[in-house]
Amino acid sequence: MSGTITIALDAMGGDRAPEIVLKGADLALERHPNTRFLLFGAEAQVLPLLAQLPRVAKVAVLHHTSERVAADDKPSQALRAGRSTSMRLAIDAVAEGRADGVVSAGNTGALMAIAKFVLKTLPGIDRPAIATFFPTMRGETVMLDLGANIECDADNLVQFALMGDAFARSVLGVTEPTVGLLNVGSEDLKGNDAVRGAAARLRGGLTPIRFHGFVEGDDIGAGTVDVIVTDGFTGNVALKTAEGTAKLFAEALKSSFSHSPMAKIGYVFARGALRKFRERFDPRRYNGAMLLGLGGIAVKSHGSTDAFGFANAIGVAIDMKLNGFLEKIRADLARVNSTMPAVQPAAL
Amino acid sequence: MSGTITIALDAMGGDRAPEIVLKGADLALERHPNTRFLLFGAEAQVLPLLAQLPRVAKVAVLHHTSERVAADDKPSQALRAGRSTSMRLAIDAVAEGRADGVVSAGNTGALMAIAKFVLKTLPGIDRPAIATFFPTMRGETVMLDLGANIECDADNLVQFALMGDAFARSVLGVTEPTVGLLNVGSEDLKGNDAVRGAAARLRGGLTPIRFHGFVEGDDIGAGTVDVIVTDGFTGNVALKTAEGTAKLFAEALKSSFSHSPMAKIGYVFARGALRKFRERFDPRRYNGAMLLGLGGIAVKSHGSTDAFGFANAIGVAIDMKLNGFLEKIRADLARVNSTMPAVQPAAL
Repeated sequence: MSGTITIALDAMGGDRAPEIVLKGADLALERHPNTRFLLFGAEAQVLPLLAQLPRVAKVAVLHHTSERVAADDKPSQALRAGRSTSMRLAIDAVAEGRADGVVSAGNTGALMAIAKFVLKTLPGIDRPAIATFFPTMRGETVMLDLGANIECDADNLVQFALMGDAFARSVLGVTEPTVGLLNVGSEDLKGNDAVRGAAARLRGGLTPIRFHGFVEGDDIGAGTVDVIVTDGFTGNVALKTAEGTAKLFAEALKSSFSHSPMAKIGYVFARGALRKFRERFDPRRYNGAMLLGLGGIAVKSHGSTDAFGFANAIGVAIDMKLNGFLEKIRADLARVNSTMPAVQPAAL
Repeated sequence: MSGTITIALDAMGGDRAPEIVLKGADLALERHPNTRFLLFGAEAQVLPLLAQLPRVAKVAVLHHTSERVAADDKPSQALRAGRSTSMRLAIDAVAEGRADGVVSAGNTGALMAIAKFVLKTLPGIDRPAIATFFPTMRGETVMLDLGANIECDADNLVQFALMGDAFARSVLGVTEPTVGLLNVGSEDLKGNDAVRGAAARLRGGLTPIRFHGFVEGDDIGAGTVDVIVTDGFTGNVALKTAEGTAKLFAEALKSSFSHSPMAKIGYVFARGALRKFRERFDPRRYNGAMLLGLGGIAVKSHGSTDAFGFANAIGVAIDMKLNGFLEKIRADLARVNSTMPAVQPAAL
């Protein structure tokens, strides 16, 4: 935990930027005091906030730019148009070695496109993926892809498995993570060509991965495996379905406790326990989606999060750096690429 | 609600058949006293149960067969092998007009394959789909397909939309149901060819459907639309993710209340409210997946449900008959098939 880490922040990304970004940076310093920030954004808006946040001001350098990526810019548009948007400059700082990672709450598609263009994908990775943590009965599970790649073939899924495995070993600290492929059943014949092909390759032992086999949607909450691999369409739907179900439950629970005078009394006694329950599933705790497969650390914060949530996204980038995620995945890929120089169609 | 309805029951399907099937039939009679049952199963196991359940015995006719579809039979195997399995005979009873619908807790794939073969698909429907209800903030939403069709094209999705629409109007009693297509974002360009193609056609007004547009995973719990249409891979993952999240929440909530003496006291006061909360999300209440698009009513019960759950599955079949689901969907399809005689590639 020693040494200073520098995080580049897209100060203008997100629904309530730059306020939430700066306040998030302030909160992040409580847990990670050895952090420095490179801020990219509009002076007129950022400077007054820095004046109120002396702790951040002390460790931050502001690079003024008045340009920004809009929430509804198309990725291709954002990529071509702006070489001096706050998002682009923050990513450039990572590419140029001035920052150890970048965090943005801006437009996801633009962030992925620019990060891929600027940071490049790692050798052996065709497409980067978006990953996040899920709370489970056993702790936490990492799932990817969550929307960067709508259609995936078996190769993509195997690469996601490698990325998820390296992430679980470095950041989650699991020595031999188990990896499952999301499917509609556990039998070999279930699913589409992509998942069956990926399973055949992962079972073949050509990768260092401890492959569990197919998992189903309810294995996410059960925490059956450490890493769940899926295409971006299914992963995005699963992530949002879990979020929606959690929200429905939380609302229904809240209304249950205002249902009767007895329930209200019960609430008073159970308040502490219920607070712990809420904290455990607080979506802000799980804020910070990792862009994996790139030659640099990039984390996407939810656009509508608050300072607490944004601080957690910064924490994810710091953890990735501290735990040597990039070194671990590079080593893995080098090993796999040397034993599996080209994908053999026969392996399918 | 008048007139007698006859339901064919696969007495041998499910983890605890025939006991749960018979006890479920008994419970179903409480809510639907004008029901008669045709039972298909092994005399030696069914007769002793009927002796204990005089209410069922009075309105049931048992057709003995010693053959049954096993839980791990492949659909093709189940279809070819057994002309006298309890599942096949129960479906035959619907095809021959002796029963108004069939309910089975057996092998889903086999049920779908046999039902499709025996009952045929409706004119204009290429593939049947599996649908179920989800509890939402606004009430209930129907989602399909949940696993019958792993890969779907735009045509399949449009047909699912028609089926879901007819179901919501007849069984849910919604006059003008809203229909959404499950996707990874709400913008027109999001998703794959199938969802974009289906959206173009549904927007085109060639169907009687009130098309809401794209919805995302969190719209399931929010109850944004009455009907959610998706392919069987995504639908199956979404269904099971929601179930897994609900289970995780329920477990965590339970452990919260045993956390401290204060919380335990709180539980005593809040017990009534919490029971209502649990009841609302009781998966047994949502048991009974509908096989839509067939020339007869067929309902699949969860294999591991209990009598209360199985009774609800019987209730679904009865509701479909009482509310004239088949007549409504036939009328809709006739209308659509006449205005949209062949799918125009240009419509994409």
